[in-house]
Amino acid sequence: MESALRTDISSNNGVGDGGFLAACRERRLWLCSAAERLRCTVVGFAGKLGKIARDDPRRVAHSLKVGLALTLVSVLYYTPLFNGWGETTIWAVITVVMVMEFTVGATLSKGLCRVLGTLAAGLVGVGAHLVADLCGGKGEAILLAVFLFIAASAATFSRFIPEVKERYDYAMAIFILTFSLVTVSSYRDDPEDLIELAHERITTILVGVAICLFTTFFVFPIWAGEDLHELAAGNLDSLAEFLEGMGSECFGENSSCENLEGKAFLQLYKSVLNSKAKEDSLITFAKWEPIHGKFRFRHPWNQYQKLGALCRQCASSMEALASFIITLKKAQYPEANPELYLKIRATCTVMSLDSAKALRELSLTVRTMTGPSPINNDVSKGTKASSDFRAELSEDVALLQVIHVAIVASLLSDIVIQIEGITESTNSLARLARFKNPAERSQSSNVVINIEE
Amino acid sequence: MESALRTDISSNNGVGDGGFLAACRERRLWLCSAAERLRCTVVGFAGKLGKIARDDPRRVAHSLKVGLALTLVSVLYYTPLFNGWGETTIWAVITVVMVMEFTVGATLSKGLCRVLGTLAAGLVGVGAHLVADLCGGKGEAILLAVFLFIAASAATFSRFIPEVKERYDYAMAIFILTFSLVTVSSYRDDPEDLIELAHERITTILVGVAICLFTTFFVFPIWAGEDLHELAAGNLDSLAEFLEGMGSECFGENSSCENLEGKAFLQLYKSVLNSKAKEDSLITFAKWEPIHGKFRFRHPWNQYQKLGALCRQCASSMEALASFIITLKKAQYPEANPELYLKIRATCTVMSLDSAKALRELSLTVRTMTGPSPINNDVSKGTKASSDFRAELSEDVALLQVIHVAIVASLLSDIVIQIEGITESTNSLARLARFKNPAERSQSSNVVINIEE
Repeated sequence: MESALRTDISSNNGVGDGGFLAACRERRLWLCSAAERLRCTVVGFAGKLGKIARDDPRRVAHSLKVGLALTLVSVLYYTPLFNGWGETTIWAVITVVMVMEFTVGATLSKGLCRVLGTLAAGLVGVGAHLVADLCGGKGEAILLAVFLFIAASAATFSRFIPEVKERYDYAMAIFILTFSLVTVSSYRDDPEDLIELAHERITTILVGVAICLFTTFFVFPIWAGEDLHELAAGNLDSLAEFLEGMGSECFGENSSCENLEGKAFLQLYKSVLNSKAKEDSLITFAKWEPIHGKFRFRHPWNQYQKLGALCRQCASSMEALASFIITLKKAQYPEANPELYLKIRATCTVMSLDSAKALRELSLTVRTMTGPSPINNDVSKGTKASSDFRAELSEDVALLQVIHVAIVASLLSDIVIQIEGITESTNSLARLARFKNPAERSQSSNVVINIEE
Repeated sequence: MESALRTDISSNNGVGDGGFLAACRERRLWLCSAAERLRCTVVGFAGKLGKIARDDPRRVAHSLKVGLALTLVSVLYYTPLFNGWGETTIWAVITVVMVMEFTVGATLSKGLCRVLGTLAAGLVGVGAHLVADLCGGKGEAILLAVFLFIAASAATFSRFIPEVKERYDYAMAIFILTFSLVTVSSYRDDPEDLIELAHERITTILVGVAICLFTTFFVFPIWAGEDLHELAAGNLDSLAEFLEGMGSECFGENSSCENLEGKAFLQLYKSVLNSKAKEDSLITFAKWEPIHGKFRFRHPWNQYQKLGALCRQCASSMEALASFIITLKKAQYPEANPELYLKIRATCTVMSLDSAKALRELSLTVRTMTGPSPINNDVSKGTKASSDFRAELSEDVALLQVIHVAIVASLLSDIVIQIEGITESTNSLARLARFKNPAERSQSSNVVINIEE
């Protein structure tokens, strides 16, 4: 058969024996390389999954917990105990899928929202049904549709109120859902069926929420409060590491403040700058969580928001410092006024290292939850260096004033350089999105003027 | 009766006639003030709702659209056409409640995710059912539970993959939900019923998604792409306004860079700094949207992310500049070296006003989608001033070097001051959360040392 194939190929393409072998080799190579590519893709994907799991092993725990909770619900469904429920059991399944979240606080908040939303909508829905019943016939259907329109619009609008959005967004969604279901069903079923249905639905939802809460609380609980606490300590550590890097790489004995672009420590503030969204959601969820571990009743969760805001402001100043330092190229000019230079440099070393030490101490305070005592001394050391520096400069009034305007001018000229980047970026947006030609704009504005004339 | 009450009160409390009148007056006052308080609360709440609506009238439109879509679904339910469907119609209602989002892109993405997730889970679920069917009896139930556990865990874990999380998070949730429902139902129903059920479910979900898409596309559509475009232009305007404020309030002829704390223009960069989360979600949704208005096929949505990142970096530098300027109190020292001072000041005026002009032009470019042409000249004016300033300074080598280290030291000493704020904030956290006494910590660490010894 191979020989037949050979003849076929050679007669078709006029390729000789050597060409056939080469084609075979090529095909084998292609198959090998395809297999290799596939292997690489699979290995790469597995590596990516492994990294996601290693980065936070609680992700694996959460996945298994969702599987466990759903299996528990389905086992309940199989048992004869719940045989009478029939179709409504699906509400327990839907509840588990929708309510199971990563942290205890999020699960608790969604579970409570689901129960509250269902209860409220059930009550309002039955009320609307009774009112509509008075009309009877076609009037009932029309009235129910009007009620549905009003309730759904009002509830949707209420989700734009910040307080509702923060804590009861899901409850409002469930309110709309349940109210719609009650109104739609109530048109066909008689009231007794409706109450039976409502009772079954609420019971199944309660069973679903109970299973979720059981799984979240008792199987490897993941607390939003702990994550938030860890985030605060981590932010303090990042800021400290930046200052330690400054102290050693920039003001160290054998180091100079140049060619620092690309250094890892100069990127550390970025994670702090981007921590706001995560922090906000963790605070919302932490407030729902009961006492656990080291967190007592009425733990001051809002305080983490204030601390986070201050850390981000500090990170912003670090960004300005980093972007200024990157542009420094001291080698361009010879050393002059070495005395003052060395003095300021020493001040900088004290400021950065002592501040870093203070931040490390603060992060330890947060991590161990042990009150701060030796911190104040350290900070005042850094503060003292800073105010000494200011005092010393202010002796030379002329120099001080020039330095102040020069700092403003230098920061402004940094902004000017950044705006060049913004301009380039906008230009490439204009090119990629094929914005109109400016000539057209001026023409069209001329047209407007002509019309006005 | 009043007299009886009077006697009663006076006998009880021994309060005379005047006391009774005073009590009446007090009660009337209390009622009045309660009514007044209620009125104030209602008026305040109505005002708040009015403000939410006025801030973005599209919120009202969206609320009415949700009401409309749900009413449409319920009308479908009332019509004889869908009478045969019975219970499955609730899926159309659930779909509308869950899929209707504020923007077209978000609704489209959720609708597609819902359809995709349902289809995939339906196929996998029926396959799992066929495999489990081979075992029969108790084995089937156990196998189905095992399949459910594995599928739910795997799908939940996949939601941690960033690419999946960004675009297919909702599809994964729907996959888990549908797969659970199929497995749980398939234990009781025979296969033919199951396929009938799957068919009905998919049809109702398609009807629900169709109603959502009809309402979002044709009734007052709200485009994520337009919001994103507007956000980019607004960010450029905020940056420009900051620089215009600097130019007039700080370097203007009759103004001085002092006592600027609390000025509105110094807060403008904050909205830019906090725009990342909104921008990211708008970009995700804009990518789902079809061609509309001025946005063609393959509009470069990712470019907005780059532009946004540059704007936020610029805002960060502005924050550093603002926090430096607020601390300036020029009046503390007399003017010295007026020549250099005036020169730098003039440079600052040119830099800030020309950069502001360039930014305004860029924002106009984005808003009108008309290519940039006169921008480059303006920027180069600001850039020229900036490089002139640097060149002029570099002539005085000694001064330049001192200024450079002084800038670093000054930025660092800003950071030191911010760290004092962080320390205070951590201390109040420690106080409010009642952290342990430091003595306890040193005791416990001593214990560890003793054990190690």
